[in-house]
Amino acid sequence: MRTARFRDPAGSVRTGEWHGDAVSFGDETYDLDAVDVLPPCEPTKIVCIGRNYAEHAEEFGNEVPDRPLLFLKPPNTLSGHGDTVTLPAGKERIDYEAEIAAVIGEPARNVDADAAMDYVAGFTCLNDLSNRDDQRAEQNWVRGKAFDNAAPIGPAIAPPAEVPADAAVELRINGTVEQSSSRDFFIFSVPELIAEITTYLTLEPGDVVSTGTPSGVGPLSDGDHVAVEVEGVGTLEHDVRIP
Amino acid sequence: MRTARFRDPAGSVRTGEWHGDAVSFGDETYDLDAVDVLPPCEPTKIVCIGRNYAEHAEEFGNEVPDRPLLFLKPPNTLSGHGDTVTLPAGKERIDYEAEIAAVIGEPARNVDADAAMDYVAGFTCLNDLSNRDDQRAEQNWVRGKAFDNAAPIGPAIAPPAEVPADAAVELRINGTVEQSSSRDFFIFSVPELIAEITTYLTLEPGDVVSTGTPSGVGPLSDGDHVAVEVEGVGTLEHDVRIP
Repeated sequence: MRTARFRDPAGSVRTGEWHGDAVSFGDETYDLDAVDVLPPCEPTKIVCIGRNYAEHAEEFGNEVPDRPLLFLKPPNTLSGHGDTVTLPAGKERIDYEAEIAAVIGEPARNVDADAAMDYVAGFTCLNDLSNRDDQRAEQNWVRGKAFDNAAPIGPAIAPPAEVPADAAVELRINGTVEQSSSRDFFIFSVPELIAEITTYLTLEPGDVVSTGTPSGVGPLSDGDHVAVEVEGVGTLEHDVRIP
Repeated sequence: MRTARFRDPAGSVRTGEWHGDAVSFGDETYDLDAVDVLPPCEPTKIVCIGRNYAEHAEEFGNEVPDRPLLFLKPPNTLSGHGDTVTLPAGKERIDYEAEIAAVIGEPARNVDADAAMDYVAGFTCLNDLSNRDDQRAEQNWVRGKAFDNAAPIGPAIAPPAEVPADAAVELRINGTVEQSSSRDFFIFSVPELIAEITTYLTLEPGDVVSTGTPSGVGPLSDGDHVAVEVEGVGTLEHDVRIP
């Protein structure tokens, strides 16, 4: 069962079942246009991975890392399925980056890779929005990666058993496919990432590990419609507004 | 009035008044050894500043930045006054960094420097613990700065009116003064930092802006007792354990 969080027509926040074109809670089923779909989890942090597909690292002339490149997105970055995402004004280039994201289900600290999937509640879609103007100029990618709305996420969490080991990830801008790859091409697997991160940081329930983006990243324009599809999860869609 | 959060002898978490050697809530006053002092706020993120004292930038051979160097500590980094802080094992050098930290009181987004102090609930002490082994080797300082317990904070929040514009900050290891400076030597003032950060990120109530450390940083050893004193706030004390 895929789960989604949403605000129902009475204004209550519910965690219910995701049906693709509808959501349900208890005996009630709602069309998507009757509810406000929220981020499917409430992370205290999103731990993101850079350069986790060899061909994307090459795209920017970077070497393949010998251990995961980590960076952070705090909760102010969250936005949800169906949102119009307002991006920072006056930048030359803000890019989309489609990612498969793992949602943590249990507190995880010093977890071995062999046991890491026991701590994963499931997978969702994430768009790692990246403000290149500032990212290039700073040591830590805060202005570049942690601005408000920089992490559209959702629409639902699919349990690991429903997401194939070679799950496809695809991103479309206004219907045109711009990124297309699969979990097969990860440099570091989800268990390896969780083992490395939890050597240093405790991952808490609802926290997200976003697994990096494949090649094909590119700039967004005002009015773009973005779709990030992960096999087994569904499709995260959002609009873009650049003031 | 300085405020502290603590767990009272009955196990309830309270926000009460800080008296230096005691805390109170309603009509009850408790000696510090009768309660568990908690971090004085519950940040969704700590936004830290690097190289905000010219002489500390020089200490590491770095240029004085033309805009603030930002990095993030997520909530897993919090630890409190009186805690024994366990640090990552097997590292050659984990440093203390005494800092004056501003605690946000109101949601802040696109705030002008002139108005920024309206969004500050007060000031506290923070020790920006830094794992140099990993920090030196990574693009974003996640292993280096965001490990569990990497932000001892407290003991109390003092309102801005109780903290002088030239407030002293001092750090002592086992009673020996290792860092001593004041707000007078900031490169970027607290209002300038809040203006810059909120151009990109919303600061939420309880969030922390930690203003950088003066010269004199150095390594910690197992068993060290650390005291960070900020004039007008009080003294944050914690022990160090390195497994």
